[in-house]
Amino acid sequence: MKGDILEREIHEQPQVLKNLIENESSHVEHVAQEIRGGFDYVIIAARGTSDNAARYAQYLLGAHNQIPVALATPSLFTLYRKPPLLKSALVMGISQSGQSPDIVSVVEEAKRQGQPTLAITNDPESPLGSNADHVIQLHTGREKSVAATKTYTASLCALALLSAHLNSNDEALAQLKELPMRMGEVIERTSTLLPRVERYRYMEHCTVIGRGFNYATAFEISLKITELTQTVAEPYSSADFLHGPIAMVTKGFPVIVISPRGSVLEDMRALVVRLGELNPELIMISDEPDLLGQANLSFPLPSGLPEWLTPMVSVVPGQLFSLALARDRGLDPDQPEGLTKVTETW
Amino acid sequence: MKGDILEREIHEQPQVLKNLIENESSHVEHVAQEIRGGFDYVIIAARGTSDNAARYAQYLLGAHNQIPVALATPSLFTLYRKPPLLKSALVMGISQSGQSPDIVSVVEEAKRQGQPTLAITNDPESPLGSNADHVIQLHTGREKSVAATKTYTASLCALALLSAHLNSNDEALAQLKELPMRMGEVIERTSTLLPRVERYRYMEHCTVIGRGFNYATAFEISLKITELTQTVAEPYSSADFLHGPIAMVTKGFPVIVISPRGSVLEDMRALVVRLGELNPELIMISDEPDLLGQANLSFPLPSGLPEWLTPMVSVVPGQLFSLALARDRGLDPDQPEGLTKVTETW
Repeated sequence: MKGDILEREIHEQPQVLKNLIENESSHVEHVAQEIRGGFDYVIIAARGTSDNAARYAQYLLGAHNQIPVALATPSLFTLYRKPPLLKSALVMGISQSGQSPDIVSVVEEAKRQGQPTLAITNDPESPLGSNADHVIQLHTGREKSVAATKTYTASLCALALLSAHLNSNDEALAQLKELPMRMGEVIERTSTLLPRVERYRYMEHCTVIGRGFNYATAFEISLKITELTQTVAEPYSSADFLHGPIAMVTKGFPVIVISPRGSVLEDMRALVVRLGELNPELIMISDEPDLLGQANLSFPLPSGLPEWLTPMVSVVPGQLFSLALARDRGLDPDQPEGLTKVTETW
Repeated sequence: MKGDILEREIHEQPQVLKNLIENESSHVEHVAQEIRGGFDYVIIAARGTSDNAARYAQYLLGAHNQIPVALATPSLFTLYRKPPLLKSALVMGISQSGQSPDIVSVVEEAKRQGQPTLAITNDPESPLGSNADHVIQLHTGREKSVAATKTYTASLCALALLSAHLNSNDEALAQLKELPMRMGEVIERTSTLLPRVERYRYMEHCTVIGRGFNYATAFEISLKITELTQTVAEPYSSADFLHGPIAMVTKGFPVIVISPRGSVLEDMRALVVRLGELNPELIMISDEPDLLGQANLSFPLPSGLPEWLTPMVSVVPGQLFSLALARDRGLDPDQPEGLTKVTETW
């Protein structure tokens, strides 16, 4: 069936994360020791799905490690040839293939300026991997689908390992080890709900809202929907959404809300109340029963998961939703039109 | 007529920028002297339209001043109450009203940590203005429309003044002084083309693509279209667009491309060739005749303007397009449904 490869890769994710934690944790501990104290902030260069992993790093390294994170603007390094002075920065590149020239050139420039560098990639021998001082390897095996799934959650998991080891936080590491099992539960539970996705057969656009740790999830689910189903999907933080875009919500407008319990829950709940007056079509990804109960389609998350780990499970309903919708529309989820696995941009 | 207030504010922009340059330039020169050398990078806190001004700052301060710029993640300071350590950073807040609590709390935290702070606002007496070490005032007069136009271009102009004074670059300042006149030409020229906008009466979504200095323009035009016309508009850099979202472009899909001459032109030209194979509906904002000639609707920019100043004129066709489309749809451009002028988010 069309989409079998993508479906298999989505289902592989719990095992991929388990492998990554088992194989890479002690190396990440070593990397954390090497880089600790050597920078005041982090700059991350990444594109597409990897850029969404970088958004997770902004919140994770910020909230848990008190490290400010900037997203690089690669065109300053390539098209404008006017790289900023990177003093005080650790420069990270995230790219599953390690091939995109613009990402490589940011890390090369950091090296030229004598700043510490770190790559997160599936391929340590790639231009990105071979240029960086330190490499965290994703160990996902080859990703055959054009749309990234297991390399995305593996990138988040690599960042989670790094954050925990930078703090020498054994409790966080223990929580992380539980994650693959919970992820398996989400895949199983979501799969039973997929027949409902045909409701969105003729949806032309939607918005996806998350905040804090799950701001990244809003971007990644939007990207999966856009790539796989040719639907215009736009991601927002709940705060930015209220500063203008809420004006586009009319009756029946599809809004996907990611709202796990934790620091952002009250904020998301207030948004749902505000949205309620506009009668949108609500799709909810949450572990909070009363929010799930208000939606037209609900994807429950396992309860009790710490908020910082939820992005690795809350993206899964978005992956499976996109796969199911692509199939309902007769599109090929393994090979979306016009895309290639490795995109080289400058 | 509905939208008269917004229309007047759009037309005021050349005079607003002229005032700002005349009234604020010597103060900005003083601010530049005070802050110069006191930081390794900049963190900017902003929401909505002001966040798009922050995107301009990323490229402008990067390319012209070699200063890396990070966009703050306000929820770390508010919802998570885990502010990052801001060592080596200058912290800027951009907000026309100076009221949004999340933006104020980022600047307050920077002050608490002993870091230098700068506010760009219309109201120096606002919580944002009164908390910052330095204030650059926008001098736009009251903005009555909910959708920001003159405060956006004034924020860009304030950043342009700051960048030029940080470099003591008299040539850049002289170029900037020419800008209000060229902006007047764009308003006039664009206005004659607005009857063509009714072609988009039934457009349900679109994408807006820019890169480098005009990455900000893509975001700001998207926001104006979304706020004013209830169309789902999604901004992308040409590089990110090729890493996935191009999959959504089918025949007739509306794509707005911002491509002034300069460092990004060849990149945008390559995108237009690639898009051409997909037969989209192309709306072009450019000073390059051959690109303008390929579009279904073209908004010409004055030629000879240096690329770093183009964002202040290339956004104007997007503002006027959104106003005209809102009128064609019978919406009220002065007061979009569900929005208020000052949005307080945490």
